[in-house]
Amino acid sequence: MARIDGRAFDELRPIKVTENFLAHPLSSVLFEVGGTKVICALTSEDKVPGWMKAQKVPGGWLTCEYGLLPASTHDRCKREASNGKQSGRTMEIQRLIGRSLRAVVDLDRLGENTLFIDCDVIDADGGTRCASITGASIALQLGLRNVLKRPNILKENVAAISVGIVRGELVLDLNYDEDSNAEVDMNVVMTESGKLVEVQGTAEGKAFSRQQLNEMIDLAEFGLKKIFTIQKEIIEKAPKVHKVRQVEELGSLGDVFGNIKL
Amino acid sequence: MARIDGRAFDELRPIKVTENFLAHPLSSVLFEVGGTKVICALTSEDKVPGWMKAQKVPGGWLTCEYGLLPASTHDRCKREASNGKQSGRTMEIQRLIGRSLRAVVDLDRLGENTLFIDCDVIDADGGTRCASITGASIALQLGLRNVLKRPNILKENVAAISVGIVRGELVLDLNYDEDSNAEVDMNVVMTESGKLVEVQGTAEGKAFSRQQLNEMIDLAEFGLKKIFTIQKEIIEKAPKVHKVRQVEELGSLGDVFGNIKL
Amino acid sequence: MARIDGRAFDELRPIKVTENFLAHPLSSVLFEVGGTKVICALTSEDKVPGWMKAQKVPGGWLTCEYGLLPASTHDRCKREASNGKQSGRTMEIQRLIGRSLRAVVDLDRLGENTLFIDCDVIDADGGTRCASITGASIALQLGLRNVLKRPNILKENVAAISVGIVRGELVLDLNYDEDSNAEVDMNVVMTESGKLVEVQGTAEGKAFSRQQLNEMIDLAEFGLKKIFTIQKEIIEKAPKVHKVRQVEELGSLGDVFGNIKL
Amino acid sequence: MARIDGRAFDELRPIKVTENFLAHPLSSVLFEVGGTKVICALTSEDKVPGWMKAQKVPGGWLTCEYGLLPASTHDRCKREASNGKQSGRTMEIQRLIGRSLRAVVDLDRLGENTLFIDCDVIDADGGTRCASITGASIALQLGLRNVLKRPNILKENVAAISVGIVRGELVLDLNYDEDSNAEVDMNVVMTESGKLVEVQGTAEGKAFSRQQLNEMIDLAEFGLKKIFTIQKEIIEKAPKVHKVRQVEELGSLGDVFGNIKL
Amino acid sequence: MARIDGRAFDELRPIKVTENFLAHPLSSVLFEVGGTKVICALTSEDKVPGWMKAQKVPGGWLTCEYGLLPASTHDRCKREASNGKQSGRTMEIQRLIGRSLRAVVDLDRLGENTLFIDCDVIDADGGTRCASITGASIALQLGLRNVLKRPNILKENVAAISVGIVRGELVLDLNYDEDSNAEVDMNVVMTESGKLVEVQGTAEGKAFSRQQLNEMIDLAEFGLKKIFTIQKEIIEKAPKVHKVRQVEELGSLGDVFGNIKL
Amino acid sequence: MARIDGRAFDELRPIKVTENFLAHPLSSVLFEVGGTKVICALTSEDKVPGWMKAQKVPGGWLTCEYGLLPASTHDRCKREASNGKQSGRTMEIQRLIGRSLRAVVDLDRLGENTLFIDCDVIDADGGTRCASITGASIALQLGLRNVLKRPNILKENVAAISVGIVRGELVLDLNYDEDSNAEVDMNVVMTESGKLVEVQGTAEGKAFSRQQLNEMIDLAEFGLKKIFTIQKEIIEKAPKVHKVRQVEELGSLGDVFGNIKL
Repeated sequence: MARIDGRAFDELRPIKVTENFLAHPLSSVLFEVGGTKVICALTSEDKVPGWMKAQKVPGGWLTCEYGLLPASTHDRCKREASNGKQSGRTMEIQRLIGRSLRAVVDLDRLGENTLFIDCDVIDADGGTRCASITGASIALQLGLRNVLKRPNILKENVAAISVGIVRGELVLDLNYDEDSNAEVDMNVVMTESGKLVEVQGTAEGKAFSRQQLNEMIDLAEFGLKKIFTIQKEIIEKAPKVHKVRQVEELGSLGDVFGNIKL
Repeated sequence: MARIDGRAFDELRPIKVTENFLAHPLSSVLFEVGGTKVICALTSEDKVPGWMKAQKVPGGWLTCEYGLLPASTHDRCKREASNGKQSGRTMEIQRLIGRSLRAVVDLDRLGENTLFIDCDVIDADGGTRCASITGASIALQLGLRNVLKRPNILKENVAAISVGIVRGELVLDLNYDEDSNAEVDMNVVMTESGKLVEVQGTAEGKAFSRQQLNEMIDLAEFGLKKIFTIQKEIIEKAPKVHKVRQVEELGSLGDVFGNIKL
Repeated sequence: MARIDGRAFDELRPIKVTENFLAHPLSSVLFEVGGTKVICALTSEDKVPGWMKAQKVPGGWLTCEYGLLPASTHDRCKREASNGKQSGRTMEIQRLIGRSLRAVVDLDRLGENTLFIDCDVIDADGGTRCASITGASIALQLGLRNVLKRPNILKENVAAISVGIVRGELVLDLNYDEDSNAEVDMNVVMTESGKLVEVQGTAEGKAFSRQQLNEMIDLAEFGLKKIFTIQKEIIEKAPKVHKVRQVEELGSLGDVFGNIKL
Repeated sequence: MARIDGRAFDELRPIKVTENFLAHPLSSVLFEVGGTKVICALTSEDKVPGWMKAQKVPGGWLTCEYGLLPASTHDRCKREASNGKQSGRTMEIQRLIGRSLRAVVDLDRLGENTLFIDCDVIDADGGTRCASITGASIALQLGLRNVLKRPNILKENVAAISVGIVRGELVLDLNYDEDSNAEVDMNVVMTESGKLVEVQGTAEGKAFSRQQLNEMIDLAEFGLKKIFTIQKEIIEKAPKVHKVRQVEELGSLGDVFGNIKL
Repeated sequence: MARIDGRAFDELRPIKVTENFLAHPLSSVLFEVGGTKVICALTSEDKVPGWMKAQKVPGGWLTCEYGLLPASTHDRCKREASNGKQSGRTMEIQRLIGRSLRAVVDLDRLGENTLFIDCDVIDADGGTRCASITGASIALQLGLRNVLKRPNILKENVAAISVGIVRGELVLDLNYDEDSNAEVDMNVVMTESGKLVEVQGTAEGKAFSRQQLNEMIDLAEFGLKKIFTIQKEIIEKAPKVHKVRQVEELGSLGDVFGNIKL
Repeated sequence: MARIDGRAFDELRPIKVTENFLAHPLSSVLFEVGGTKVICALTSEDKVPGWMKAQKVPGGWLTCEYGLLPASTHDRCKREASNGKQSGRTMEIQRLIGRSLRAVVDLDRLGENTLFIDCDVIDADGGTRCASITGASIALQLGLRNVLKRPNILKENVAAISVGIVRGELVLDLNYDEDSNAEVDMNVVMTESGKLVEVQGTAEGKAFSRQQLNEMIDLAEFGLKKIFTIQKEIIEKAPKVHKVRQVEELGSLGDVFGNIKL
């Protein structure tokens, strides 16, 4: 059966990455995969969360927040800030992104600092949590290499992709239409060295067999290998220095680079 | 390496189920697995959520809420009601339980009614979300069979178990100590007919290989088969009629049974 | 006029106490009076509230929180954690329980520690605030004697009972049905030595005379004497040592006993 | 022992009532007792709360809200509106005021309307909840008589007074200094015909005997008789017609009087 | 066209100020302008907000909170404390009042102290934000002169007035009726020396010309000059010492005056 | 004195507008002015707010929400959604934007529909509220012309600009550095026909003279004329039809265009 956008079942949507998308953070990218667009930004603070202090956990921390612009979805979604709370879905997603990134960051080497990853979706067309993870890994890599000059804090890249069963067919990288009609929806998070970080498969109305599970993970691994190649190319091609945008208005560069002590 | 409680790597903790644990709901069980104890209760309401009305989705709904008694954990955890919000962890868990149960309920046959599953943990020793799912399936079965007299609304039983890698070893049904030290933690939700409903594997500090993933799912399937046998026995042995506790104070039975129209 | 459950007007409902009901707190009981069941648990923290620090109040503190399981009531009540706040009723009740317990605790001897009493109702059939106070006194006694080894911090036992006027008749220990139909509802909290700690009488629709007030307090005193006898017996019969449940999974006992410094 | 303000143990503080204190409500008074000043205002709405509709309870409703101006207390108290919630103390007090007023209002005759009583303390010097009840009864009386022309909806007046044991001595009508140092604090709410509506006695650090309870209630009754005389005089002296303040700016009187349909 | 209350287009409503309106704050006034009545109170705390500490901003701070009594408006407005949040309108107003007062306070001379201005409207008939500013300036002046004995912390008086275009006519000091029907509503905040602090003009449905803007500011300046004369007279006539109300109940005066260290 | 970015005192920063920036809303632009970038998006709903229904106000409504991406500011600002509330600043700004847009929209012609304007700042370098208004006017124009085919609902364009006094000098279109150091900050909102919609001038530490006010408004008018020319050009150059991005994934166009009934 043909996919709505003409892709083969094992075909990724086009990926496009714009570095330095924002002016102020340590690093940022606009990560696009098909119709999904996420701004991933890295900032930092020279302290750790209260619970780490209380429990005397050594090293640093990395945390993530996720949001949808109200106009990013097919029908306008309510602004969580005016609703007064984040939805369960938002919390679930930002916890997943945070865990995925922490899996590849050497928190001990980070010192008493916290890295913040903000993933803000400006266009949602399926796969926003996977796009957030893949994009955030690039932003993290660039920020650690170009600004903080400590590339080895990131042990390796991490990326994510969705797979699923839609109208009985196995497909890679579901768009919104497919996601809304999927019988099974699975997100696989993997490191560049091929290890799994998260596997989350959910039957939406119809349970799946062990064989289908295996096929979905095979397909995800196939797609993730391609993504790692793309991710690596982007990072290698990216300028090795931080291109500060609107440098004339920034006052002192120290304000940007100075607030993390490594 | 020996497990802290002497179990073999593929050994479940003892399961105990007390039916009719509470006086008022349609059905309820105290589900115990090792040191973990969860009260699972079924109640109902003769209407559906606002979004179903708005979107004109036919049929009924099933929703779930989860909570920890403050004194259920090793150190007292803060009461979410006085904190003014549920944590991300709580939301994530109750969404998982709800999805798992909806996978085996025929919502169309439910009519314009909502089933509520409340899972309240009174002792937490690892595996509370899995215990909640397995226990809730029993409560649901008993309530539909004994009180609502519509057993076929539940298509089949559902159960869940945790597996993981603890200090390098594959283990089934992690307790709190193992859970706190796990390199990988996975929850598998399956239907009695052997289909998968949810697979959630998370690396806690150390990513895992595809082979380890397969071994974990094998082990979960092994454990789940045993759980389905236990679950089935409990349901079959349970009295076929609703034993109303404190019947003398209930006033009219109609108040209990009458508020769902099937 | 006969009471719905056949009791004489001055007859208490059967009381049953299960000690060590939970695995982790310093002490805990399941307190049952008729169809009402409350879990009362004692935990501690080695610091005092901010306002005590700010006002330099010496000694320790005792605080209480109260909750109803959603399925504990005749009709499911909304979970306060998902509602985002505690109701006025809940706040009123937990303030009453806290004041009642503080009346018999020597806060000066407690040192800079806070005792937490959590009263979680699993079945509600009237009198939950009184059951919470009476049960909490037992949990407090057992925790101070068996675990903290400082029994003299509790100056004496405290207990509570409801009395009321239902359909014109004076009755002791109202169940839910009576409570819903009471013209007057009164809760009396007393110490074992016969002193009053709280007296709260409320006309529900029909005001009461001074004579009726006196009769209600007489009846409450009559009931409370019986309760003190029961309470004392339970405490004396209870093992003098802390029976740790699931000791094998607790790791270090120090974790349980060590977090209060007396 | 002499009282700080020279009063005899059974002496009330001076009471002063200013009617029509506010421009817009159906009626309002500034009720002063010693240094305590409360604005009590009556407004209405031509519908009943949702739960009454849902449970098909006939008749109307009366509800109360209570607040302290931040500058009303010895040290500025935080504004609850900016804190984002009402304290347990506020909720407890407004529930008490509401119950006390409902005890003397014929809700059946009210029709499908809700009466709102707002008690806003502008100076707090002890006894604010009692002053609120006594003042609200006057506002209610005047509003029903002068504006709504249905005086018989109020069955009789209600009033409240505090008594207590301060430094071992029985005293009537505690001011802030006495309240802060009281061993026992009791609030008694009574109807003009001498029936009790609420009796709330609380030991603050030291439990009290049955004899002390009786003496406190005797003293409260003594004080309340005086208050009923004052209350009655005020109401009788008050103009029988609603003196609208700033009538020129009100546009249509119908807006004020028209929004309750009796 | 005649104004509803017979005033000329450039005529202020009568202003009346009652000093020492509350018992406990450092100073307080009841400020009345026509049918609008606001209680403005000054209190203090011997510390500064967290953000000043964090950013090491020297000197002190002044902050303001604003509220409407529920019964202060033509139709009862919801109590923000029970709503659980302040409205956007309230926040906007209290930010304006705070900025206006800070413009005339020498924060550097204040030391590490915070001044609180609470403006609580008891009758609302238009112009409540302007009345709050004008009244707060008086309270501030009196508190600094009479109690804190540091009059020079206030550099000069500040006052505010509304002007607008109502049914095509330019008018000064709009009442509620005019405000509800205004095409343009403008608030002008000025210092006694004639400098502008805030100018906020808003078209309500119909945009205004530059010429109309100029005329409105001219009219505001005309009115403000009159207000400064009134304000000055009030301050000069006011007793130079703090008249403590209910001094007999205050215990130690040190409690009132002692909590700010200048 | 030279401005930090070399502009003349009356020079605007470069303006750039990208239409159709988002895939799903009725229309959207990325509006850039210097280093400030705001996404302005228009969506709609075929109903009006509850208060309009209750008060039977005819016609439609337009409302606005404003937000800052956490990484949009020099130092990361907290995400309001996870803070649980919008700040006073956010509320003030979105109320201003809403009022400004409603001033040029013919709400009566809108029918029973609500237009939503979402302004999300992705880079903040001063003037975000003005950029939001100017950008929103373009989005509104394009959405009404190209998609809803009812251009006459927008009576004319509206735009806003900031002026101020920085280090004693009058300047137009302040950037962040200037804004942080401004003695006076003023925002002027004007219609294309030269009428004023909002004028908000605020002294930040130093009050301003009437002459300075006039000069600031002159300068704002000068800048706004240039902006109207730019705004007009952009709108005229923009394709007259809605270029749907990712049309292949949108399923049914009816979903996009169909949810407003004019």
